[in-house]
This record gives sequence, C-alpha cells and structure tokens, in this order.
Amino acid sequence: MLIVMDHRATPEEIRRVVDTIEEMGYGAKAMPGRQRTAIGLVGNDGRVEEARLSGLPGVRELIRVSKPYKLVSREWRDEDTVVDLGNGVTVGGDEVVLIAGPCAVESRGQIMGIAEQLRGSGACALRGGAFKPRTSPYSFQGLGLEGLQLLAEARERTGLAVVTEAVDAEGVELVAEYADVIQIGARNMQNYPLLKRAGRSGKPVLLKRGMSAKINEMLLAAEYLLSAGNPNVILCERGVRSFDQQTRNLLDLTAIPVAKSLTHLPIIADPSHGTGVRDKVTPMARAAVAAGADGIIVEVHPDPAKALSDGAQSLYPHQFEELVGQCAPIAGVIGRSLAALP
Amino acid sequence: MLIVMDHRATPEEIRRVVDTIEEMGYGAKAMPGRQRTAIGLVGNDGRVEEARLSGLPGVRELIRVSKPYKLVSREWRDEDTVVDLGNGVTVGGDEVVLIAGPCAVESRGQIMGIAEQLRGSGACALRGGAFKPRTSPYSFQGLGLEGLQLLAEARERTGLAVVTEAVDAEGVELVAEYADVIQIGARNMQNYPLLKRAGRSGKPVLLKRGMSAKINEMLLAAEYLLSAGNPNVILCERGVRSFDQQTRNLLDLTAIPVAKSLTHLPIIADPSHGTGVRDKVTPMARAAVAAGADGIIVEVHPDPAKALSDGAQSLYPHQFEELVGQCAPIAGVIGRSLAALP
Amino acid sequence: MLIVMDHRATPEEIRRVVDTIEEMGYGAKAMPGRQRTAIGLVGNDGRVEEARLSGLPGVRELIRVSKPYKLVSREWRDEDTVVDLGNGVTVGGDEVVLIAGPCAVESRGQIMGIAEQLRGSGACALRGGAFKPRTSPYSFQGLGLEGLQLLAEARERTGLAVVTEAVDAEGVELVAEYADVIQIGARNMQNYPLLKRAGRSGKPVLLKRGMSAKINEMLLAAEYLLSAGNPNVILCERGVRSFDQQTRNLLDLTAIPVAKSLTHLPIIADPSHGTGVRDKVTPMARAAVAAGADGIIVEVHPDPAKALSDGAQSLYPHQFEELVGQCAPIAGVIGRSLAALP
Amino acid sequence: MLIVMDHRATPEEIRRVVDTIEEMGYGAKAMPGRQRTAIGLVGNDGRVEEARLSGLPGVRELIRVSKPYKLVSREWRDEDTVVDLGNGVTVGGDEVVLIAGPCAVESRGQIMGIAEQLRGSGACALRGGAFKPRTSPYSFQGLGLEGLQLLAEARERTGLAVVTEAVDAEGVELVAEYADVIQIGARNMQNYPLLKRAGRSGKPVLLKRGMSAKINEMLLAAEYLLSAGNPNVILCERGVRSFDQQTRNLLDLTAIPVAKSLTHLPIIADPSHGTGVRDKVTPMARAAVAAGADGIIVEVHPDPAKALSDGAQSLYPHQFEELVGQCAPIAGVIGRSLAALP
Repeated sequence: MLIVMDHRATPEEIRRVVDTIEEMGYGAKAMPGRQRTAIGLVGNDGRVEEARLSGLPGVRELIRVSKPYKLVSREWRDEDTVVDLGNGVTVGGDEVVLIAGPCAVESRGQIMGIAEQLRGSGACALRGGAFKPRTSPYSFQGLGLEGLQLLAEARERTGLAVVTEAVDAEGVELVAEYADVIQIGARNMQNYPLLKRAGRSGKPVLLKRGMSAKINEMLLAAEYLLSAGNPNVILCERGVRSFDQQTRNLLDLTAIPVAKSLTHLPIIADPSHGTGVRDKVTPMARAAVAAGADGIIVEVHPDPAKALSDGAQSLYPHQFEELVGQCAPIAGVIGRSLAALP
Repeated sequence: MLIVMDHRATPEEIRRVVDTIEEMGYGAKAMPGRQRTAIGLVGNDGRVEEARLSGLPGVRELIRVSKPYKLVSREWRDEDTVVDLGNGVTVGGDEVVLIAGPCAVESRGQIMGIAEQLRGSGACALRGGAFKPRTSPYSFQGLGLEGLQLLAEARERTGLAVVTEAVDAEGVELVAEYADVIQIGARNMQNYPLLKRAGRSGKPVLLKRGMSAKINEMLLAAEYLLSAGNPNVILCERGVRSFDQQTRNLLDLTAIPVAKSLTHLPIIADPSHGTGVRDKVTPMARAAVAAGADGIIVEVHPDPAKALSDGAQSLYPHQFEELVGQCAPIAGVIGRSLAALP
Repeated sequence: MLIVMDHRATPEEIRRVVDTIEEMGYGAKAMPGRQRTAIGLVGNDGRVEEARLSGLPGVRELIRVSKPYKLVSREWRDEDTVVDLGNGVTVGGDEVVLIAGPCAVESRGQIMGIAEQLRGSGACALRGGAFKPRTSPYSFQGLGLEGLQLLAEARERTGLAVVTEAVDAEGVELVAEYADVIQIGARNMQNYPLLKRAGRSGKPVLLKRGMSAKINEMLLAAEYLLSAGNPNVILCERGVRSFDQQTRNLLDLTAIPVAKSLTHLPIIADPSHGTGVRDKVTPMARAAVAAGADGIIVEVHPDPAKALSDGAQSLYPHQFEELVGQCAPIAGVIGRSLAALP
Repeated sequence: MLIVMDHRATPEEIRRVVDTIEEMGYGAKAMPGRQRTAIGLVGNDGRVEEARLSGLPGVRELIRVSKPYKLVSREWRDEDTVVDLGNGVTVGGDEVVLIAGPCAVESRGQIMGIAEQLRGSGACALRGGAFKPRTSPYSFQGLGLEGLQLLAEARERTGLAVVTEAVDAEGVELVAEYADVIQIGARNMQNYPLLKRAGRSGKPVLLKRGMSAKINEMLLAAEYLLSAGNPNVILCERGVRSFDQQTRNLLDLTAIPVAKSLTHLPIIADPSHGTGVRDKVTPMARAAVAAGADGIIVEVHPDPAKALSDGAQSLYPHQFEELVGQCAPIAGVIGRSLAALP
C-alpha cells in the first residue's frame, strides 16, 4: 500500500504516518517527491485497517497495490479451477459449455419439452428460475418448490445438469437439494448472508456479476464463497449498467480475458441478459466464445411470445440450434471444443 | 403503453398486435406515422404482461407511459407521507431531521459518548451498524446483537431514535425489536425477501438507493414495502456509481426534487457515503438541505482515525456541530427548520 | 411523437396541446388512459420543434417515436453502404478489413518498416496519427504535415490505404490531400464544424464513437456527414466510459449488431483503444469479428516499449500476424472472409 | 509514480525497470512486498513518458502519484484566482455571481427585453448563444455574427458582461471581439485547437465540464488554457452523463468542493443543463450556492414555450427573481454575498 501525503504535509505528519505503520507491524518506506511525499507500506497481507491511516492528518490518499482478495487470485493458485457439473461435464477446462433454458419454469409441459429439445441441440445444462427476483412486486415471482421438482425431473429425463437461482440465505439448502449448480443473481452479488450460506452448501455456485460491479468486486464476492469453503465457483458476465439504454445492459466481454488474468476461476457469458434483445443474442454468444468464455448461458423458450418473463430476449429453439452450429467452429479456432454429454 | 412497430411491419403484423391487445382486455389505437406505425394500448393498469407484446413479429419497441409503481406515486396519494420516529420527531413534514452516528457500533464507551454529544449538538436520531455488509470477507462485520442492545441503551439515555441496518430477511425481526427505524442498505435495495419482511415489520424503513439504481427502481423497491403493508418509508439518496473515482460515489442531489414530484414519501440525503471524504460532507449536507431534503444522515465518530470502518468519511463531533449551525439557516431560507427533540 | 400529460392536467391544457400540434401542421390523436392522457403527434418528419410542446402547461414528457436522424437510417436506405478505400478494397460488403499501424507517425524508418510488415501480414490499410489530440498539453502532439507526407509515401510503397485523423475544420483539406480516409476521433465526434467540413471533403470518413456517446448520437453525428453530401462513412466502436477502470474503456461490441439494424453504414471495432491493454487486443478483435464487425482497426508498433504514445496497448508485429490468423477462420464461420489487397 | 510489477516478474525484469528509470534521469526505489514488488519513481516532473515503462516485460500497472497538470493546481498557486468580467464584477472572490439569459439569441426584441429584466433582478452577466452546437444537423444553429452584435448592444444598454460560446478555433477571434467571456461548451472541452486559440485570446474563458469528463480531465483542459498564457479561467459544472435518464444530466455538485481543493480556479454551476427540467433549476441553484459555487449560470427566456432551443429547461423571468431571492441568504450563511453591478 502507498500512502500519498498532501503537498502541505509537515515533517511531523509524515513522521506520524511512518510511526503508525510501524505500530501496525508493517514496514514503512518514505519516498519524498518533487510535489509530495509518498510512503510505502511493506508487508501488507491484505487486511490492513486502512481507516487508521486515511484518517491521519496530512494524508491525501491511500493507493492499494496488493489486491484485496486472495483465494480467488492467480497469485494464490496459478492453475485453472475446473468445476464438475456432476453429469460428466466440466467448466473451466478445454471445453466450452452451453447452458440453456427458459427464464422461469412455468409448467411441466414447458420445461420437459424444452429440456428435450435443448439436449438434442447440444446443451449440457438446463437453466430455469423457480424463485424469481423481480423489479416490480406485481410481476410473476416463480413456481417455488414445484419449479425445483420439475427441474429435477427434467434432469432425470435428459441428463442435463440443473442451474437455478437461490434468492435468499434461507432458501439455499432447498435449492441445493434439487440443483446441480446454485445461481446467485446479479442483484444478490453482494448479498453476503446468501454468499456465506452458498459457500457452505457443497454445491457449485454460478455467481453473476452485479449490475454495476467492478471486476474486482465480483472477485471479492467470489472470495466470500471460497473463504466459506466452496472452491467450485463459476463467474458470469451478464452485462453492466450503461448510459445508453439501446440495449438492456452493456455486455462487457473484455471482462472475460481480464478475469482470466486475475483469477483461476472459470467465467461464462450471458448474452440474453447482456443484450435483452433476441436477435442480438447469437452474435454476442459467438463473440463471447471468441473472447475466451468457458461457457454460455442463454434463455430459450418454446414459445417466447407467451413467456411469463423475459420473452423479448428468449431464443426460439431453432435459433439455439443455429447458435450451437456457429459457436462450435469458433471454439475450434482457439483450440477448444463444445462440451457434450457423455 | 405504446407499441412501436418496425418500419417494415406488414399490415398483418399490425393487425395481430391490435388483436392481442384486445384479447388481453385493453383498448388499441393505431397511429400510422410517416416512418412507422405506433399502437396505443389504452386502459393499462400497470400489470400488462409486456412479453406477450414485445415477442410479436414486427414489434420494435414498447414504451411505457404509465408508471410501473402505484402506491408510492403522487397519483395515488397527493399528500406528503410523514413518518413518526417514535420519539416525538417526524420526517417528511416542515422540519429537517438530522440523523448521525458512527458507521459501526464498536463498544459501549464509543456509542454512549457519541450519542450524548450528538444529542447535545442537535441530532434527533442515532445511526450505527450492528450488522455490517462489507465488500471484503476479511473486514470487521459488526457486533451483532450486542450492538443492537447498546443502541437501545443509548436511546434510553438520550432520547435519540435508533436507525440501524438489517442485512437479511431472517434478521429483520431482531432488528425491529431494538430499532426505531430499520435501514435497508444500498446493496440490498433489490433484496426482495428482505424488503417483503421489512414491509411486514411494523417499523418505519429507511431505504437507501442502490449503487446504480434509477430513481424509478428505488420507487419500485419502496413499492415492495408499501404493498406488504408498511406505509412508513423514508427514501435516502446516498450517491451512485460514476466513471470518476475522485469521490467514493456521485451524490445525486437532483434526485431529491425529482423524487418529491414523483412520490409522496420523504427523502433524505447521506453526504458521508455520497462523497466518502470528510471535508466534503458538510458542504454537501448544506447543499442537500438547500435542495429540499427532509433530513440528513451523516457519520460522526468520536475518533475517526481509530474507526473500524469508514473512518475517512466520518466527521469529528465538532464538525457535526458546525454542520448543524450551517444547515439551520439554510432550512430557514426555504421555510423549514431543523427538527428538535421535544 | 407522443406527448404525455401530467395526471393533474386539465382538459384545457390537453386542448391547448392538441391545438398547438395542429397549428404546427401535424395531426393530433388524444389517448386518455387510467392515470393520464397521452397525445400522439402524427406526421412527424423528424424536425418538430419540441420546445414549443414541452414548454406547455400540463405536459410531463415528450417521447420520440420517429428517430431524429434520417439519411443514415435503414428506413431511408435498406441496402448496405459499401465504402471504397481507393486501393481496390471496400468496407461494408462481405469482406472484413484490417486496418493497422502505430498510434502516431514518429519517423520515416518507423512508418516504412511497419507498413511493409503489416502489408505482409494481411492489413489493407495503414493507420497512424500525424496530428494527435492529447489530454495533456505536455504530451507529444504529432509530426503534422511531415507525418502526412510519410504516410503518403508508405502508401506508394505498399499499396495500403491511409487512414489518419483531422483534429479541426481548418485541417480537413490538408488531411484530405494525403489520406484515403479521414478519421474523426472520439473527442471530436460532436465537433460540428469539423463534421461539416469533413462532409464536404470528398474523402471517406471514419467516425469514432464518442467517449460516452449513445449509439443514436453517433448516428446523428454521421447524419452531419451525410447531410453535407458525404455518403462514405464508416462507424467505429472504440469503447465507452465506464465505472470500472480495469480497462481503459469498455468495448461495447453489442453496438455492432445494434448499429447494423439501425443504419446501412458499415461499422468496425477498435480493440486497442477499447481495452488499452496489449494482451486483451487479440481476444477482443476475434470477438468483434464474431459479432459481425466490418473491420478491425488496431495499433501495431515495431517496438511498443519505445512508442511515443499508446505503447501499452500496441501490438508487436508478430502479435498482429497471430491476430490475422485467428480472425480469418472466425470470419469464415459467418460467411465472410478477410479482405486482401488485389 | 509507482510501477507495480507482476507477481511472476523475475529479478531481471525488476532490474530492467530500475535501470530504465535511472536512464530516464529519475530515481528508483524498489519496495519488495509479499505478493509483488513495486518500484517508486522519484523526481517525477509530470512529463514522464509512461509508455517506456508500461511496455517493459513484467510490469503490471503504473500508478501516478503526482498530478498530470501543473499550472492549474493548488500546489503551483495557493491563492484563489479571481477573474475580472470587465464590468466591475469578479468571479472567484467572496461574491457569488449570477449569469443568466436565453439558450440562444433569437432576435433584438428577445435579447434586449430579457437583458433589462435580468439586470433588474440581480444578474451581473448575460449568457446567450450566437453559435449553437446542436446534436442534430436539422436544429436551429444560431444567428452567428448578428447574435454577437445584439449581445454587445445589450451590454451597452445594461452593463451586463457578455458570456457566449465559440465553437471552433477559427471563430475565437470573432467571439473575443464582442464577448467579455468566451464560453467553451461541454462537447468541446477536449477540442484542443479551440482551447489553444482561446488561451491566446486575451479574454476570460468559461470552460464547461465535458459530458463524461473526470474532474482531472477538466483540469487538464484548463491547463491547455493556462499553458497558452490565459490565467483567467472559470470552470463550470454542468452535469455528467448517467445511467438514469430521469434528468438530462446528473449535476455533480460535489465537484465544486473537490475542484476547490485541487485548483485555485473559480468554479460555477449550471443547473439548467445539469437538470434539463425547469422546476428543478431553482432547488439545484440553491444547492450549488450552498456547496460553495462561485456563481450560477442559468437559462432564462421571456417566453420559454416559444424558445427555439432548450425551452423545457428555461426559467420564466419571475422564476429567476425568486431564485435570486433564495440564493442571496444562502450565500450569506457561508460568509458570501451575491455580486451586484456597481
């Protein structure tokens, strides 16, 4: 950590910062510059109580050099994490995994039908919400337990792994009982009680990037999961908030290679929420694979015009088939292939 | 609602949209333009299933005219909501309320001392976290129940109302037992299970704007509280995420008059989180009062340099006194006064 | 256009809006709703003086349905615009064009050397700044006329088309004399005197998206060029400002398919400025081609460590070769191929 | 400057960075940490060629400690700059200056009438565009020279100083001939040829913050003016781009105290463009004065409903009078007063 002093800081103020650093058990290295003095704090283990320093007179700014997270970092573990979905498919290795399904589970007919179709087209996992966090209290909020049971039944029939969201700490256990992967939604990326519980669930977690979360903050959220004992975390870029409302979100595909260099965890992309517009989903799925994503999660609905949520961004089943056909050779260009059920 | 058709939409596609609207029980009014046709949906009660329309062929865009919220709107209730803090002080009337205290409750000595000082300077309510949501799993996470008990004890001694945060649905009841106002933090603005529980708690709720929440989304979050039966909601502008990291957040004071015209709920400002820098807090508190805020919530710590969290943005007690001295005459300019304990 | 009235608007206020619309020569269609009345303005030709309406009492909001631009829109011209670079290569057809070169022209040796290498690797056009707009007045500002002459010389030797920036209206003619394509930089996207002059220059224009320009605003800037008589405009997505400073900008690749549906103009991507980090350039170039970009513009420098500007984001020549090798098969996946000099 | 090395950087790579720094004529101070080594560059004069360092192998990041600007900084000059408007009124001292007028000069009748009214209400300077930069090429672009002449005539009659915009370098001289203050608009904040010319004009400059400019970037733009010889610069906060389109821009009032601590230049606020909504202008003008602004610039039109541009955000003359009546006592609270014509 670097402590930058004000240009009017007195020698006494500089001295006091150095003393405080040493009191805290770290080394201090003063670097007088032309405009101002900066003081290096050496031996930082990532847990420095910054407020003790930032509150001292004459201090202008603290600059972190070490990263605030640890277990998720490449420094801590250089080798890529590979997450096992439990059905013979893994995320984070050479293969690119396709996860697909409706926004919400709506009925047995809907979910069984679409699961069969997706399995036939090349998906390895089935997504679908049983509990839906909705911006308006008047929108459809999901089938709950019945939705979970239908998802589990679809897995029995098709072999697809089940990915579904837990919306609160209390619900994690229930979701973990039925799902293969617990999804933490964008609105809950910093819901710490939920993260801690998911970290103890024993099931892999799909962590979506918050609506305006920095990549570092997504990694810190993942740190909550790893520090609670769960190494099986899949990150998900799903678009961030922007000043241009032409699309629902701004899909930040550069986050994929950036995350790859900072962390050993796999990262996938969600072009459905990332764009919010059906005919932009397939181009952005292709782009995500080209950028190095370990997987794609997309919304596919048997009849989008009748979907109870997110209809405008759901693909028709035949569009998903086309998406698969285009992503496969792009994966090949960078030495990867699409994952397939055994 | 207005359904804008693509310029290549066929008469059949336009016909189908009109038919669908009528099937849904609304009126449809086609408006052919030079470039494209738009279709007005008349009789919207705010619950239209948009996906049914947005998914139809030839539809380019849906434009909402009615607002998605209802109970919180000025249309629904024109008269200002006035929230009673339980100690003879109200928020939302003619008086401007000052809420102050440390970021976190750290010890009996700390909280009793500062409460006495704040009461002497003109605060009407005491803030202080017992449960702290922290970005890093390695940061101080609060004293929990003990913190709540200390806050209640401070109330006994000083008469200050207690404002403190609940971080999950499970914890709402416990917080409600000790606090006069339950705070929902920025990271939890869209934590719907928490909102629903707080909506049933019987205690007033202080709802902080999410880090990148639109004003409409804050109002929809408040709608969760009101629709669960709780009319006593205080909104709080606390800064939003911006591209400039010169300050911790970008305090959006225009949100105050904007909210005032859209909703009957009171709105206060948090210049401590809104700026993140001690010497910017007082100017922005003044500005918030000048903009029409119904109150100010600020962090004050007996010794900011030793604070366990947010030290850099906490005022010294004497700075708070100065803030009070400057805000009082500004309130007077717009026909208000600072609230005082009876 | 839709004029949304306040819910308290009186029948007289509604009447006055209708009358004003009719006075302006348009049709008016009132649509009374449950909460409020909206009034459709029919016959809009894109030039409605909105202030006359938005200033009327009782008006809450104007909602544009027609787009504010015209010549650049797909409505106006359905067929893709194909821009001829003058050396046998076109942008906007089936082929994907690679434009490469250093940030700035620094010396004859530098530019001739790199031009030969790029030509050998598959580039069709050479980029390089002779006039550099720099955030700090103390940074290197380019070689000026000498830079233009060196670029022209490099074209003679290699056949590469020359793309270089004009930074003010006065300089357009000079740049047009030497360049094949006049670049308008991101900071100048709304420099209207510059746009008007470039629109009369007779040379194709590469228009970069402004740092925080909406896609619609980029199209309006292009409208300045087309309305001044220049149909040969190439749009360029180069990243927008974001709250996360992990990368220099946030490359908005979804803007590519979005622009394709709104306009007939070609659009290329700049992953160098879009990311600002050398090892993220190639993944994002691949992603841009996969998303449907008509070309890629990248910075390549013979010795990035010694570059006078943008060294950290410039590729080494061998990295550019690798980029070409990866982009070619991705273009193939979507039925395109890389353009080649005849 | 601090050069942060990758955690896998070899001793040779660290050595090479140290050597390069020394070659460049600066001191180097290595600080080995637990995770990585950082190297302090000592003796930085603000002109370090960063690319030489960022391009070296093993370098992860450069962190600037010194600021990139110089003449505008408080380090360079501690005393506040006070700008003389030429009519006995100054900006940057104890008095708060009100600048008002229509968005655009439309006719002799309009500008003379409003100037008289504004003078009577307490304005010290008249704003009004003769050259208008407009997003659409089809919008009213101003009266040009005739507009300048009308403004000068209004000054003769009323004693108000004239503030008007120059939109390109070529036009600076003409504007300087008629105006007392040359305005540089938000879209032109980084139009460097324009800044350089305005820096040599001999007239004070009002520099508006760019739509998504960081405060540091606004200061660097001002540095262009000062380094060209013009010390008389007034900064202007006019709102930045945000994700919430509820208001036209997001007025960043915290920028006022922030700028005050970084620079000696005066800073004023523009609540008209900052909000874009008439009834939000006065609350935000009050807030700006409370936050410490050295002045306010607002749009006032004799008949906003008929304004050729920006009608929806223009005050009626009586509203401006009310604004003055409220801002005066708020200025008093912080020891200032409104400026008045002698």
